[in-house]
Amino acid sequence: MDIRPIGVFDSGLGGLSAVRQLKALLPGEDIVYFGDTARVPYGTRSPETIERYARQDCRFLLDRGVKCIIAACGTVSSVATAALTDLPIPAIGVVAPTGDAALAATHSGRIGLLGTTNTVRSGAFHRYLAQKNPDVQVFAQACPLFVSLVESGWIGQDNEATVAVARRYLRPLIEQQVDTVILGCTHFPLLAPVIRDILGEGVTLIDSGAACAARCRDLLTGMDALNGRDVGGQCSFFVSDHPHDFEAVASMFLGSPVGDNIQQIDPESLVL
Amino acid sequence: MDIRPIGVFDSGLGGLSAVRQLKALLPGEDIVYFGDTARVPYGTRSPETIERYARQDCRFLLDRGVKCIIAACGTVSSVATAALTDLPIPAIGVVAPTGDAALAATHSGRIGLLGTTNTVRSGAFHRYLAQKNPDVQVFAQACPLFVSLVESGWIGQDNEATVAVARRYLRPLIEQQVDTVILGCTHFPLLAPVIRDILGEGVTLIDSGAACAARCRDLLTGMDALNGRDVGGQCSFFVSDHPHDFEAVASMFLGSPVGDNIQQIDPESLVL
Repeated sequence: MDIRPIGVFDSGLGGLSAVRQLKALLPGEDIVYFGDTARVPYGTRSPETIERYARQDCRFLLDRGVKCIIAACGTVSSVATAALTDLPIPAIGVVAPTGDAALAATHSGRIGLLGTTNTVRSGAFHRYLAQKNPDVQVFAQACPLFVSLVESGWIGQDNEATVAVARRYLRPLIEQQVDTVILGCTHFPLLAPVIRDILGEGVTLIDSGAACAARCRDLLTGMDALNGRDVGGQCSFFVSDHPHDFEAVASMFLGSPVGDNIQQIDPESLVL
Repeated sequence: MDIRPIGVFDSGLGGLSAVRQLKALLPGEDIVYFGDTARVPYGTRSPETIERYARQDCRFLLDRGVKCIIAACGTVSSVATAALTDLPIPAIGVVAPTGDAALAATHSGRIGLLGTTNTVRSGAFHRYLAQKNPDVQVFAQACPLFVSLVESGWIGQDNEATVAVARRYLRPLIEQQVDTVILGCTHFPLLAPVIRDILGEGVTLIDSGAACAARCRDLLTGMDALNGRDVGGQCSFFVSDHPHDFEAVASMFLGSPVGDNIQQIDPESLVL
């Protein structure tokens, strides 16, 4: 038994969609979340910069005494895996759990991947899936506008602009007749209703946050490191900047009010 | 006469659209450009963070020996004006020159403003225009998705998604019957053809980069600080990160190839 909290980080607030899944699955666990809102988005930065940021983010969570780390960030998990491998505690990226969930779901072996530009370009999901099952075909689509749509709150199925953007991104996946689509960015589950409308019910959507939360439960169970409680887990939120509309956007991702347990830290205090 | 270069900075590469205008107007002047690509975008950050970044950006240009600074960034010019006021050389933000150009263009006194969320929220254009002419009415629309559309290269008039997003943003301005629209972000001139299609020829678009370039020419002329050449100005480009697709995106904003005179600096070297 291990009463320490679970650490979760993301480049911004999107990772709260993984916290939402984690709270649903492990409601007794304490969670420390760090959103690097002063330096978001990571998806458009160079791999060297992303890795430096990821190491600093892990350092911050280690200093908070966490028992494991979820990098709830498709970009970090794809581009900066080295930052997650040489830590004194286990770390979970999104690629392996999400890839495994997609492999379990597909019948046709034709899998679509939606992600940020860097996640797609990195080829990390391709490599993982090919290594697990060389017969699988992966069709990737970078969807940078999805991030802005979600952050604008334009997530409704009646929003013509959102539907037009989604149609354009999804057209190649429809042409390739995929039966499973990975939502490889924490923002994308909020667009799941729009995406499902366009792809149809025959396509399974894989939520990376849900896959990470399930992997975390399995990992802690296997290590006998759950905290033994079924209710009452507390969440602490740290951010490196406190943008306007913070509460509204954060609560949208979390699926419930974030409350006032939020601390802003100085981004220049993030070091190795 | 002053042979020192003109300094221009922006949170990213968008400011190169102002450099494009500056080169057209003052082809003999040397220009030093700094794009803070490691920390882009500024538009979603807190005012305190934006001001700190703007001061560091000015410091960087001062250390390069520039004779004046253009803050080709709607966000900095709206939110962090203090950073531009206590410098040993003149600095030009986008608000005053762009506001003056809009006032000169409007007949009806009904002016639209398109900008990032922070530019609009700051009210800087409203305050400037109201102070210059209390009878003018300003109708503002935050357009965060325009930035992503431009950076995705989705700028064509035949792009259904772009047109759908633009229609949604422009609808309130059409309803308000504006006759002049300020493109209050360096990215937006690239969407001018789409915006003009929707608004019609009766509406004048004001390009903030062009307005800044004209103001810079007037300022240097008045100070007798032009370098006396009509051709052969050199541009040096500095960025704090060197993202993939850098050349393509930079050349799109600049309107010509950026060439190889680009240096990447360490963002952690940006200090006050």
